[in-house]
Amino acid sequence: MTKSRLIRRSGNPMMNPMTRQLILNAFDTNAVGFTPSGQWTDPRDRAMNYTTMEYWANLARVLEGGLFDGIFLQDLVGVLDIYGGNADAAIRSASYFPQNDPMMVIPIMAYVTKHLGFGVTGNLSYEDPYLFARRFSTLDHLTNGRMGWNIVTGYLDSAARALGRTGQLPHDERYEAADEFMEVVYKLWEGSWEDGAVIRDRAAGIYAKPEMVHEVTHSGKYYKMQGIHRSEPSPQRTPTLYQAGSSERGRQFSSRHCECIFVGGSNKQAAGTLVADIRRRAVENGRHPSDVKVIVDAVVVLGATEAEAQDKLAAHRRAVLPEGGLAMIAAAIGIDLAKLDPDEPIPFKPTEANRSAADGLAKKSAGKIWTPRLIAEDLHLGRGSTIVGTPSQVADEFAAWAEQADIDGFNICRAFTPGTFVDVADLLVPELQDRGLFKTAYREGTLRQKLIGHGDGRMPATHPAAAYRRQPVLV
Amino acid sequence: MTKSRLIRRSGNPMMNPMTRQLILNAFDTNAVGFTPSGQWTDPRDRAMNYTTMEYWANLARVLEGGLFDGIFLQDLVGVLDIYGGNADAAIRSASYFPQNDPMMVIPIMAYVTKHLGFGVTGNLSYEDPYLFARRFSTLDHLTNGRMGWNIVTGYLDSAARALGRTGQLPHDERYEAADEFMEVVYKLWEGSWEDGAVIRDRAAGIYAKPEMVHEVTHSGKYYKMQGIHRSEPSPQRTPTLYQAGSSERGRQFSSRHCECIFVGGSNKQAAGTLVADIRRRAVENGRHPSDVKVIVDAVVVLGATEAEAQDKLAAHRRAVLPEGGLAMIAAAIGIDLAKLDPDEPIPFKPTEANRSAADGLAKKSAGKIWTPRLIAEDLHLGRGSTIVGTPSQVADEFAAWAEQADIDGFNICRAFTPGTFVDVADLLVPELQDRGLFKTAYREGTLRQKLIGHGDGRMPATHPAAAYRRQPVLV
Repeated sequence: MTKSRLIRRSGNPMMNPMTRQLILNAFDTNAVGFTPSGQWTDPRDRAMNYTTMEYWANLARVLEGGLFDGIFLQDLVGVLDIYGGNADAAIRSASYFPQNDPMMVIPIMAYVTKHLGFGVTGNLSYEDPYLFARRFSTLDHLTNGRMGWNIVTGYLDSAARALGRTGQLPHDERYEAADEFMEVVYKLWEGSWEDGAVIRDRAAGIYAKPEMVHEVTHSGKYYKMQGIHRSEPSPQRTPTLYQAGSSERGRQFSSRHCECIFVGGSNKQAAGTLVADIRRRAVENGRHPSDVKVIVDAVVVLGATEAEAQDKLAAHRRAVLPEGGLAMIAAAIGIDLAKLDPDEPIPFKPTEANRSAADGLAKKSAGKIWTPRLIAEDLHLGRGSTIVGTPSQVADEFAAWAEQADIDGFNICRAFTPGTFVDVADLLVPELQDRGLFKTAYREGTLRQKLIGHGDGRMPATHPAAAYRRQPVLV
Repeated sequence: MTKSRLIRRSGNPMMNPMTRQLILNAFDTNAVGFTPSGQWTDPRDRAMNYTTMEYWANLARVLEGGLFDGIFLQDLVGVLDIYGGNADAAIRSASYFPQNDPMMVIPIMAYVTKHLGFGVTGNLSYEDPYLFARRFSTLDHLTNGRMGWNIVTGYLDSAARALGRTGQLPHDERYEAADEFMEVVYKLWEGSWEDGAVIRDRAAGIYAKPEMVHEVTHSGKYYKMQGIHRSEPSPQRTPTLYQAGSSERGRQFSSRHCECIFVGGSNKQAAGTLVADIRRRAVENGRHPSDVKVIVDAVVVLGATEAEAQDKLAAHRRAVLPEGGLAMIAAAIGIDLAKLDPDEPIPFKPTEANRSAADGLAKKSAGKIWTPRLIAEDLHLGRGSTIVGTPSQVADEFAAWAEQADIDGFNICRAFTPGTFVDVADLLVPELQDRGLFKTAYREGTLRQKLIGHGDGRMPATHPAAAYRRQPVLV
């Protein structure tokens, strides 16, 4: 910590190997209620305007003003209906419900910004790869290469029922299907159109060369299709790939495919072990360790003074709707917490299927016996650390995380919106810049170039997507 | 015609029963090449910028400046691959290919406008109703009730293959499935959330009342689902419904469900017969005849003088890429025209399945023997009349259409973009306004209120969607 405070910005901080410039990501959703639950009950929170265009345009301007690298939009298919055996608690507390489509707000935010990146959650279990690939290509075109896809496979039985399925695939098998889905979309994004196929020749009346545009075929266990990708190549072709799963099978998947991996660790040592594991696995998959950025979830509460920060923390705590948090955790671990006494230990048996939730609870409990009451009183509810203080204090903590856990950045959860992000932009960012821990201007290029630095903004040759190119590009 | 020219705007033209104010719709697509084919080969056409946000923002501003009621975005799933047995002609001529997702450009156009409506094509054969309903609800929220859905069931086997199906359902059965799809989305849009369910009570910590938010269940021949709609009620709930099919089964469908019906007739008498049939069927379905607006497709070429208009027409003709038109027609009628001699009569047997294409060809042939050469030389390629002239001449023709065919408006196909629409806004609209044939300001309200005039902007009680409301609203 002391070390990082000594490294002041001097000329080009990229030249100083001791200083890693942090990635700052805004963690949000197209809904009134997010985590921490119930923040909309405080008038400082503007999330009730989520159905309006100006809400999103304003948010995007705030984020780009603060040089945020991106905004990550969580999404669920289905509703939280484990707690009490129905969705009542989620409906009352607006916990991820109602929740509108996250893709549709990207064009608004893109229109009023130039550099902000967009990571949008897409649950591949319920999407058709052909139509899905076109939606992402369209957005990658419109945003000029600023699209990221947060790959999820879902965890709610209510989603499966809403889509007319008899149930979800078993946890590990969902990832088998996901690997195959990725193969199909890589074929479409990387293999259907060769570089140079689009010539736009007005005189000859030839827009693209048919011999360089290919039909993709796939016939696997879960997917079958035959077709030409409907979109010409977008700046990134394959969007920047995000993932947040922490199960063994989920890590296998993300270390192979993903470029930004979000971890929810609440202590630096455990997170550091996880980060090392992620980087090791990436290398085992033939990738460069710096081609994977690890981002830690955090709730950040800032004040010009400690007292101000504590006042704001108290307001966040007052705003929490306990039943909202209970509904979220109940759905994540698959146990109806309404059936337990408030102080009854939760009979929680970690399995691979609920590993993400299990890890969150285990780390936060730190030896405590976890009960419904503790969950209801908990502010951050499994979304990483809560970091509270003055800009200097929060920057110290950020620096300590970067050094001790080897993380690449922070996924800052909205508490009050846009207040959380206004505070980060106005108070924290200048402090981080002074320490050389944050950029002072955006890089040019696609989201991938900005985050990872690849030359042409597309997938590097070491990524599995590159194998589906007709003409492999040597990087 | 003389009659309409005598009716000058005097006070409120709505008060004059002799004057019907026309609906003006822009017919467009998220692609380089549309119909007429090959217009992108003329530098006056800007469609090659279709992947940029500014292209769409500019287009929307042009349309709202001209008081256009809406923009209708055509879309296809799959590619045109009948002509020559492959997609080569479509790829070279950019005929609906590449083609990006039409929904993603709506938020950009909505952000820079206040009144312009949006009709977007959605092929229900390849969509899941639960996710699809949420996408439309999201857009209806963001646009403040300006969304229309052009319902299609598709006609390309290439689409079915791309989605991993062994083939399309037979034509009439596609409409059976479509009726059932409508039932599911009506349940979600109209029946899942009661009016008044959303109370946004900060003090009580209650966003919505669970007892007024209902799970929807459906178990039919084609669809099965069980879930609560993820979006709270949007201004229109069910978007304004468009349709363009002309088969017997298609007309049954549209007269029951649709509010704007697009017809491609190229002569007024035939169109008049069709319009009468559409209105009669709507009444048979218990609907008010004026609750269905019939819009005719037209290619409009305007000049300040006749010579200027003729020059522009010549430029459009020069820009046509014959193979593009042939690829479109071949796919529509399912006959590989590349296998015929240019002057060989097309062995075309009209069936219900290709009725739309058949009607288009039959009307335009007007007794001629239709051949590949005639199709290749044809400018408008089945998309309604081509109306060429000075503003006064075009307005005369519009008035004649309205009087003789009882149509409600025009769907003006982009030829050069945005040039076609700039011409309409700058030249034709003032002339139509002078005659009392076009509004001089937008009405307030949702797209449905603007087009049809219903009090609260939602579906009238006589529409089948209303049957799925929990608390029927008496209108």
